[in-house]
Amino acid sequence: MSQNLTKPNSSFTSKRSPLCTSLFLIILVVVGFNTVHHPPRNPKNAILFQQLFLSSATNYTVSSYLRYLTSHPHLAGTKPSLETIHYVKTHFQNLGFETHTVPFRTLLSYPLHASLSMHFSNGTVFNLPLNEMGIANYDVSSSLIRPYHAFSPSGTALGKVVFANHGTEDDNDALRRMEVNVSGYIVMIKKGGGLGRGAVVEIAEKMGALGVLMYAEGDVSRDNFGSGVERGTVMKGVGDPLTPGWAGVEDGESAQLILEYLGGPLAPQEWRDSGRSNLSRVGPGPVMVNFTYQGEKKLATIYNVFAVISGLEEPDRYVLMGNHRDAWTYGVVDPNSGTAALLDIARRYALLMRRGWNPRRTIIFCSWDAEEFGMIGSTEWVEQNLLNLGAKAVAYLNVDCAVQGPGFFAGATPQLDNLILEVTEKVKVPDSEVATIYDKWTTINGKSNIERLTGVDSDFASFLQHAGIPSVDIYYGRDFPVYHTASDSFSWMINNADPFFWRHVAVAGVWDLLGLRLADDPILPLDYLSYAKQLQVYKDTLSRVLDDSISLTPLAASIQELTSAVKHANNETKNLMAREFTDHLLTLKIRALNDRLMLAERGFLDTDGIKGKEWFKHLVRIFCILLLGQI
Amino acid sequence: MSQNLTKPNSSFTSKRSPLCTSLFLIILVVVGFNTVHHPPRNPKNAILFQQLFLSSATNYTVSSYLRYLTSHPHLAGTKPSLETIHYVKTHFQNLGFETHTVPFRTLLSYPLHASLSMHFSNGTVFNLPLNEMGIANYDVSSSLIRPYHAFSPSGTALGKVVFANHGTEDDNDALRRMEVNVSGYIVMIKKGGGLGRGAVVEIAEKMGALGVLMYAEGDVSRDNFGSGVERGTVMKGVGDPLTPGWAGVEDGESAQLILEYLGGPLAPQEWRDSGRSNLSRVGPGPVMVNFTYQGEKKLATIYNVFAVISGLEEPDRYVLMGNHRDAWTYGVVDPNSGTAALLDIARRYALLMRRGWNPRRTIIFCSWDAEEFGMIGSTEWVEQNLLNLGAKAVAYLNVDCAVQGPGFFAGATPQLDNLILEVTEKVKVPDSEVATIYDKWTTINGKSNIERLTGVDSDFASFLQHAGIPSVDIYYGRDFPVYHTASDSFSWMINNADPFFWRHVAVAGVWDLLGLRLADDPILPLDYLSYAKQLQVYKDTLSRVLDDSISLTPLAASIQELTSAVKHANNETKNLMAREFTDHLLTLKIRALNDRLMLAERGFLDTDGIKGKEWFKHLVRIFCILLLGQI
Repeated sequence: MSQNLTKPNSSFTSKRSPLCTSLFLIILVVVGFNTVHHPPRNPKNAILFQQLFLSSATNYTVSSYLRYLTSHPHLAGTKPSLETIHYVKTHFQNLGFETHTVPFRTLLSYPLHASLSMHFSNGTVFNLPLNEMGIANYDVSSSLIRPYHAFSPSGTALGKVVFANHGTEDDNDALRRMEVNVSGYIVMIKKGGGLGRGAVVEIAEKMGALGVLMYAEGDVSRDNFGSGVERGTVMKGVGDPLTPGWAGVEDGESAQLILEYLGGPLAPQEWRDSGRSNLSRVGPGPVMVNFTYQGEKKLATIYNVFAVISGLEEPDRYVLMGNHRDAWTYGVVDPNSGTAALLDIARRYALLMRRGWNPRRTIIFCSWDAEEFGMIGSTEWVEQNLLNLGAKAVAYLNVDCAVQGPGFFAGATPQLDNLILEVTEKVKVPDSEVATIYDKWTTINGKSNIERLTGVDSDFASFLQHAGIPSVDIYYGRDFPVYHTASDSFSWMINNADPFFWRHVAVAGVWDLLGLRLADDPILPLDYLSYAKQLQVYKDTLSRVLDDSISLTPLAASIQELTSAVKHANNETKNLMAREFTDHLLTLKIRALNDRLMLAERGFLDTDGIKGKEWFKHLVRIFCILLLGQI
Repeated sequence: MSQNLTKPNSSFTSKRSPLCTSLFLIILVVVGFNTVHHPPRNPKNAILFQQLFLSSATNYTVSSYLRYLTSHPHLAGTKPSLETIHYVKTHFQNLGFETHTVPFRTLLSYPLHASLSMHFSNGTVFNLPLNEMGIANYDVSSSLIRPYHAFSPSGTALGKVVFANHGTEDDNDALRRMEVNVSGYIVMIKKGGGLGRGAVVEIAEKMGALGVLMYAEGDVSRDNFGSGVERGTVMKGVGDPLTPGWAGVEDGESAQLILEYLGGPLAPQEWRDSGRSNLSRVGPGPVMVNFTYQGEKKLATIYNVFAVISGLEEPDRYVLMGNHRDAWTYGVVDPNSGTAALLDIARRYALLMRRGWNPRRTIIFCSWDAEEFGMIGSTEWVEQNLLNLGAKAVAYLNVDCAVQGPGFFAGATPQLDNLILEVTEKVKVPDSEVATIYDKWTTINGKSNIERLTGVDSDFASFLQHAGIPSVDIYYGRDFPVYHTASDSFSWMINNADPFFWRHVAVAGVWDLLGLRLADDPILPLDYLSYAKQLQVYKDTLSRVLDDSISLTPLAASIQELTSAVKHANNETKNLMAREFTDHLLTLKIRALNDRLMLAERGFLDTDGIKGKEWFKHLVRIFCILLLGQI
């Protein structure tokens, strides 16, 4: 309860007294008095520092960080992960940053044993391998964890197999039309189709399936690396584990074998065309499989690592830059391409500080743990510091799988759209001396197609959906083939995604400039006009799906109200920008305006949350769930 | 959702554009630039304005406001109440304040018919009067409402009477010892004994009573005004009406009649001694009563009235000064002695403004409606503006029954203790030229016995218990005899409580200076050391009632943590006070410190609230419920 009486680092179990910071600042100021009267922040300096930052980019630092971090698997809660924690912490400390390590005890889930066998009517039994052929061993000497689904309950399923394509509602409807009922059978599902692991399992469970076997079909790029098998969590919700549906894992080759022996109706043409499998019929059976999974749930300690750069003028306003550190395997893409970028940004910020830079607002680097188990590290921390973050957090900038392949992608809450566009105009694309990310982005991906963070698939979830903090998520490339497999390793990165690490440098550049602008701009670069426009789009979509019995007039009215409020705020911004920031009253007016810009996103929070999923407080998400059926 | 993008008046359905204020301020500042550089707020000026305020006190203005407001009954939701709404609104407007009237539709409750008769074994029936003898008629011509309990369900109860003294758990235990079971009987209860109306009815209902007849026993002061009968609400909770227990009303004389005819065991000596009734036995019966109550619950429109004085330096920080306007009858004490004081403070603030005063922070005068039905007006408004108030409200200063009799009383959240003491040293007692309220208060009531606002009996409830806003409640005198009766009228005030209205002036003086200090002090006069001490007291009490199985070490630790955090904050305050407030950095440091002081109280809020009473979010209240069994 003393959080609000103390300073930014109150969010951590800090040894250092909050008073030090403040007294230190006071002394600074007093000194300032007797020497030269403190000049207001000079915009020119800010630009100089931004250029200095960009010029300090080096690919070898990033690659060395990444090589070390991914030298062995480091699953959350396991011993090998402690090394990466130590590495990140030491890196921050060596740069002279105030550093905090915040542990949490939490329930995690690990596999003990898994087996899969085919049973033929003639009594023949054929054991199928459950591993990643040619690339992995799971013996005790290796810290690599066998493919599994976290929080999957232990048990055995023996039954005939039904192939349900991607396991979506549509696919199950198709099965129904073929008069195939999955109830009492083991459902085999091919990854893809847009639904998350948990959702697919939930559907199968609902329809009475005995179990779910999921496989990722090999593609060309994957073949270069053997047939990796995806790990993942089937936990519902975030933060705290809940009872999951049945789940298992399977690799491509074994899947092919089972599919060959299916009878029953012919599979729809598109199901067969969609892959390279020799699938012809959907079952059930006649072949039976016996799938056994034995796992253990156990309390483990996870560690979030933080580095704090206290703001000189507004230490009580936070810009948070976060990435998770834990990985299913080696995590070269997911998540340590982001970690390497974060560590390099820290290096370059430290460089700026040696040249006299101090951020106006406090910057907090966040290195999360146990994201793969359901964003546990970030969620626990956000819940623990909800009041403090609600009052002080300006924005959360997330990077998870920083470099997956070609092309720049961004997701954000709409008030950050303009800032993202401005920043991408300042950063060069990896393979060019002239073209900016903005140029290429707009030509390749279509102008400013910034996605919305309505999903719950990385650490921005609790910041946005639970705390109502403006958020960003950026990455290079998407849908990389070795996702969550043992092939997500350094060799894959240098042979495929980013041989010279220029994509890492590019992501770091955008991420960093977003941070610099949000930390240094006297008036926060948040423009809610894009928000009003986005809400308008949602409303129009809604009006198309709803019948006339429900009036959208109140919604339209409040969007209109928001729009005019935004215009007022933007005018106020213009007027204040035009002034010199030396007057006591203007300083307070700017702070007040910034507070309004910061808190506006909180206005979308509903204290009651979403019916049945009360943890989710963000109305826009409720909206999207109603609208697009997102979970 | 646009609240946070707009200015203070965003909490009202305001016609005036929020931009006006801001632009106006900007222009002000620009003008300031070209003429003289804006000087910092000069503490000397503040003191001058405080003295000017005190010197502008007049008793005749207060009395004229009160006389008008109480010229007829003005129960919430009734036509006559509209006049008082108009009167308050016009008063604010004539003073040149930005004024808002915010209506709410809400469920209220009114009586249609009530009758009470005694039935003797020989068949004789005797109808008892249900009115306030000699002082009231309830015919259509009069706007005076008959005595009733709001939200009491309609119905008839016919049965033998049991006398349960004050209807407390102890009293019911006493009956049990006499082997008298109230189940199936009508319980007659004498007001007093410390429990609220609702609680008493709840207990009787739980024990199976058919109905409850409550009477206030005449005492000397009351006899001068006939036997008034208390009105009240038996609604459980605040804000929205819930199903109440059975309840009825009865006046002293009729009660005496019934008590005379009770048989059964002898009443305990103390029950008989405690009053002047001719009570000897507790029943049940032999006499039976037939009590019929017919009421209607109906949707009514209530009106909160606001006046806003925008802060010059921090318009986005609110000091709220509130009082309810609705009354059961004429409401000369409850609540319009407070309303008159509020209107006079407004008059005197307007005077200061004509002399060049502008508050640093925004002051909002609040005139609430439907408080008597369960703080409905204030609760609805706080719920509607929760986010905005949570981010911007510095304190809520409540005055309900401003003048009830002799002696100054105050309740507050502890961080306001010191301010209250300082302020009472500046205000003279009504009947003296020299002695201050502080002097007399400390001699009569014992030094600084500031009570805690753990009750839910006036409009501070939602501000403190639901929104976590530091709150104050002050009044002169307590436990006045005409509480909620038809005798709560102007003549009673001038003949008894405050003939020359100097007590009104005194309350207004304290209330006002609290407002001035909170609105003008560069650093908020909130000292959390008293809070830590108060928590320590609670903890010690708790440790006495708890057995050793429950460790209070964590609690002690966090109180210790709070104490040291407070000391840091107080040191910071001292350091900042010593500086001139001209530097950009210092201005921001002071704002940041003030934010921490303002938000610290919110730190006591628990998002889940009290189990079973989730609306109540304040942990200290949860604490007191556990500790003192308060509801």
